[in-house]
Amino acid sequence: MLCSEMVRWLKEQKSLNIFVEPRVRNELLTESSYYQFVQTWENGNEVLRLHTKVDVVVTLGGDGTVLWAANMFKGPVPPIVPFSLGSLGFMTPFYSEHYKEYLDSILRGPISITLRHRLQCHVIRDAAKSDLETEEPILVLNEVTIDRGISSFLSNLECYCDNSFVTCVQGDGLILSTTSGSTAYSLAAGGSMVHPQVPGILFTPICPHSLSFRPLILPEHVTIRVQVPFNSRGHAWASFDGKDRKKLAPGDALVCSMAPWPVPTACQSDSTSDFLHSIHEGLHWNLRKTQSFDGPQET
Amino acid sequence: MLCSEMVRWLKEQKSLNIFVEPRVRNELLTESSYYQFVQTWENGNEVLRLHTKVDVVVTLGGDGTVLWAANMFKGPVPPIVPFSLGSLGFMTPFYSEHYKEYLDSILRGPISITLRHRLQCHVIRDAAKSDLETEEPILVLNEVTIDRGISSFLSNLECYCDNSFVTCVQGDGLILSTTSGSTAYSLAAGGSMVHPQVPGILFTPICPHSLSFRPLILPEHVTIRVQVPFNSRGHAWASFDGKDRKKLAPGDALVCSMAPWPVPTACQSDSTSDFLHSIHEGLHWNLRKTQSFDGPQET
Amino acid sequence: MLCSEMVRWLKEQKSLNIFVEPRVRNELLTESSYYQFVQTWENGNEVLRLHTKVDVVVTLGGDGTVLWAANMFKGPVPPIVPFSLGSLGFMTPFYSEHYKEYLDSILRGPISITLRHRLQCHVIRDAAKSDLETEEPILVLNEVTIDRGISSFLSNLECYCDNSFVTCVQGDGLILSTTSGSTAYSLAAGGSMVHPQVPGILFTPICPHSLSFRPLILPEHVTIRVQVPFNSRGHAWASFDGKDRKKLAPGDALVCSMAPWPVPTACQSDSTSDFLHSIHEGLHWNLRKTQSFDGPQET
Amino acid sequence: MLCSEMVRWLKEQKSLNIFVEPRVRNELLTESSYYQFVQTWENGNEVLRLHTKVDVVVTLGGDGTVLWAANMFKGPVPPIVPFSLGSLGFMTPFYSEHYKEYLDSILRGPISITLRHRLQCHVIRDAAKSDLETEEPILVLNEVTIDRGISSFLSNLECYCDNSFVTCVQGDGLILSTTSGSTAYSLAAGGSMVHPQVPGILFTPICPHSLSFRPLILPEHVTIRVQVPFNSRGHAWASFDGKDRKKLAPGDALVCSMAPWPVPTACQSDSTSDFLHSIHEGLHWNLRKTQSFDGPQET
Repeated sequence: MLCSEMVRWLKEQKSLNIFVEPRVRNELLTESSYYQFVQTWENGNEVLRLHTKVDVVVTLGGDGTVLWAANMFKGPVPPIVPFSLGSLGFMTPFYSEHYKEYLDSILRGPISITLRHRLQCHVIRDAAKSDLETEEPILVLNEVTIDRGISSFLSNLECYCDNSFVTCVQGDGLILSTTSGSTAYSLAAGGSMVHPQVPGILFTPICPHSLSFRPLILPEHVTIRVQVPFNSRGHAWASFDGKDRKKLAPGDALVCSMAPWPVPTACQSDSTSDFLHSIHEGLHWNLRKTQSFDGPQET
Repeated sequence: MLCSEMVRWLKEQKSLNIFVEPRVRNELLTESSYYQFVQTWENGNEVLRLHTKVDVVVTLGGDGTVLWAANMFKGPVPPIVPFSLGSLGFMTPFYSEHYKEYLDSILRGPISITLRHRLQCHVIRDAAKSDLETEEPILVLNEVTIDRGISSFLSNLECYCDNSFVTCVQGDGLILSTTSGSTAYSLAAGGSMVHPQVPGILFTPICPHSLSFRPLILPEHVTIRVQVPFNSRGHAWASFDGKDRKKLAPGDALVCSMAPWPVPTACQSDSTSDFLHSIHEGLHWNLRKTQSFDGPQET
Repeated sequence: MLCSEMVRWLKEQKSLNIFVEPRVRNELLTESSYYQFVQTWENGNEVLRLHTKVDVVVTLGGDGTVLWAANMFKGPVPPIVPFSLGSLGFMTPFYSEHYKEYLDSILRGPISITLRHRLQCHVIRDAAKSDLETEEPILVLNEVTIDRGISSFLSNLECYCDNSFVTCVQGDGLILSTTSGSTAYSLAAGGSMVHPQVPGILFTPICPHSLSFRPLILPEHVTIRVQVPFNSRGHAWASFDGKDRKKLAPGDALVCSMAPWPVPTACQSDSTSDFLHSIHEGLHWNLRKTQSFDGPQET
Repeated sequence: MLCSEMVRWLKEQKSLNIFVEPRVRNELLTESSYYQFVQTWENGNEVLRLHTKVDVVVTLGGDGTVLWAANMFKGPVPPIVPFSLGSLGFMTPFYSEHYKEYLDSILRGPISITLRHRLQCHVIRDAAKSDLETEEPILVLNEVTIDRGISSFLSNLECYCDNSFVTCVQGDGLILSTTSGSTAYSLAAGGSMVHPQVPGILFTPICPHSLSFRPLILPEHVTIRVQVPFNSRGHAWASFDGKDRKKLAPGDALVCSMAPWPVPTACQSDSTSDFLHSIHEGLHWNLRKTQSFDGPQET
């Protein structure tokens, strides 16, 4: 098991204090009592203080694992070193086969970082009555999606940017994405590919019932408000990095802005090279057959 | 009420035998016992023989009403004269305000027709066991959609055309559309606009997880088969002209081909003029500001 | 040299009368006086009667070679067997390495054919004065393009379909394409991919100065007229299958309709399989990385 | 004449020193000797020092006039107050009819500004021999375009970003655009709409010969290099804000980065409101027919 191997190496070669998730700690101890030194945390308040104890986070998995790890840190986020278990993802530029060389070099430093901005989202119930945001914000590293679910009525979402009316989205829904998320769902819906270091928020409609609804990119400093109209015929559904579907009733709203704490992820080479590599390898961006010889004159 | 007025006019001025839906007949009789002459039908076998009694169908409503009326005729379809109640739709080129002139001219003939092809769809359960199509085909005039519903797993649909493998759709889903339906949901998903007289089937992905999944148009004579793989992590959902959602389990398939009986709808001018008019008025196709004067030299 | 080898084989094994282009005949005779039996033609009237002497055309090259060969036949076109010299093209499904097996099978028959429609184009000078089409029509198998050349003024082309006004194209230009040509320049400009057996004409704008100018597909029976307005600030340029640029002055028009004589090209398997194969291999259509394992739960 | 009227008003009501272009000064003096007080400059060194004498620039015209005025300032640029002569443009939010109120308010201050970044471009001849940039950089406020002109060969441009290989552009060409320019030519080629305050460079292909060439947005701090390969079959052409076409021979390169001096343009309301207003009014962004009533049940 790669995880236990890496834990042992980090302990013995690097003399680091090591924290793992509670579930993983149990697995390690099942494997061997050697792993008694491994620490963990309890969900609840201890998670909230985790950033004070952790200097660097190592993830093993795909982009989803990075989303999940980042989401544990609601405030400041330590640098994340994302190892891929198979082919590389958009946020996982390190092959796990070579973890020793990579971690060696990273722990010595300096390291190159991509600072990935997050969106903080509030669901506001019955927005007309009160603007009080009672719940904790939900943080997304890729995108928040508002869609019509399985309703046969088109969603009809009123969108505002810093109190200016933007547009009314009539279609399957709307994606508000970070630039890190520009290679995820927003891309499938037709959005541009944006380097993760560009500060901005992608405003990408899903199957809009309009010919002229080109995707938009807004500055990072704005607040976006998406309102389900009071007279809406159906509900809308919000989901956050593809998870946690929440129902939005007529009158409810979703409010989004850039979160104060970005997520630093380690680069394998540098931010631009890693990004270009990931869109070539992961998306076959502009891959095409080299044009073969053609023309009657040379037969 | 427009409907009762029109019934009276058709009876008194044109001496026609008139059939209306059962529900509408009740409404007419509530209005006045004058409407005793109006005939109707019973659902069941009588509907199936309706085309033997009806020479022309008049609809009052939007495109949805035309879809609904066409769907009553599983075999041959009499010409439909679609009146719009408000703004014109893609299949409803007649303003109801002027129904007398229009019906006068149409009943005298000749009339110009758009022949709209339909797709016939079969759901095949557990396709590996048997290819028997046990149920009646479902007819669609616009499109059949296969999507992932609210599943967070991308759909993964294997598509075949006359037994050639076409592709595997990974994304939100797939639309198989008639050319009449090219201005409906397929358009929202990025498909081309196709004149309804072009014979063909639109193969349009919904938010595909691939940069290179350009929509495709296949000939009308093919049979398309969309299969949910046996190892699929989620179900898929089929819906027919936006209605009748049916769950497709892993192993199920949907088979589509052109239906033998098209739907003739009356044109206001001719098929091409009506089509162009509807995309200009209904979709603001290529509407743009006339470019204003510009250039420093002439200030 | 593949050509001479194939000529020898066709003569000795199949006892066929063989015609080659004048230039190629010279090359063959330079190689050896053996090739005295090879016939050719003279440009001019002899070319026009070529279809009466030729039962099957063999091309060696890419799609451009097929375009070129087809263009020699202004009237009826014999079946074309297109061999590729390198990777396969959209119209060249036969690998030249295996020419013996392929030709053997084709000459025995039966063969599967894709019937490719052509557009016939007339340039009309000073369209207001006269509609007389004085010149021979120009035939295209892929597309005719009308663009602004290097003019810094957007083209402004008035388009009509059977005398209905379609739209005014403001942008870099317009492509009128056959469905065979849907995988050529029209695709680069954002048009749909259309199976070559679908009868229709693609109307695809080039970089339109409008958000809502979705490409259109029109029926094969229409006549399209593209007019450079009298008050146009610049000229436009027409080119035919990427060649033969002709200047269109203000007042000139281009008139297009389906040509009466299509081009039959031999299929390697059948029309649909060959088409699907060519878009997979030639365009990497919907090629994507198989989604790798992801998710924190399984680390 | 609006210009003379405005000059008189600025002099008499606001007691300002006024500079106009040499040509305009001549026109004013032809109108009346009253305008003797109006100053101008001589082309050459005087233009280079213009920013030391000018506190605010007023333009009368469309976006082209703003491009032209900005281009006079190679270094620091004073705030520009762009008046539209007809309908509003993307950079001209002030109606000239109300110039008195607007200028009154602007001269009192405070004013809201959109800081528009420019690209500085160098053409490097025979890039292999030397990287010396001998000429002054060319500044663009919208975009620099590299295209194939009327060559029938696709351009084949090798692109680098900070020495990382980005891609090879095979198609009609490439647009490097500022975010201000995202509503100009880049939009026609399929690029996203980007708020002008988002810092970034749009990398938008023109009719790429590839299905997967989605437009890209790069960070503002990068240097982009576009190289015409030594073995290129044709030349390429660069043009700057739609002007000044320069031929690029095989071996030549274009190098672009963000210019140090942005262009401040006055807002009518604020940067976001003005941007949203301009895309609604100027591009009919997401304009659609309000969906009319539909459904058979309510006839």
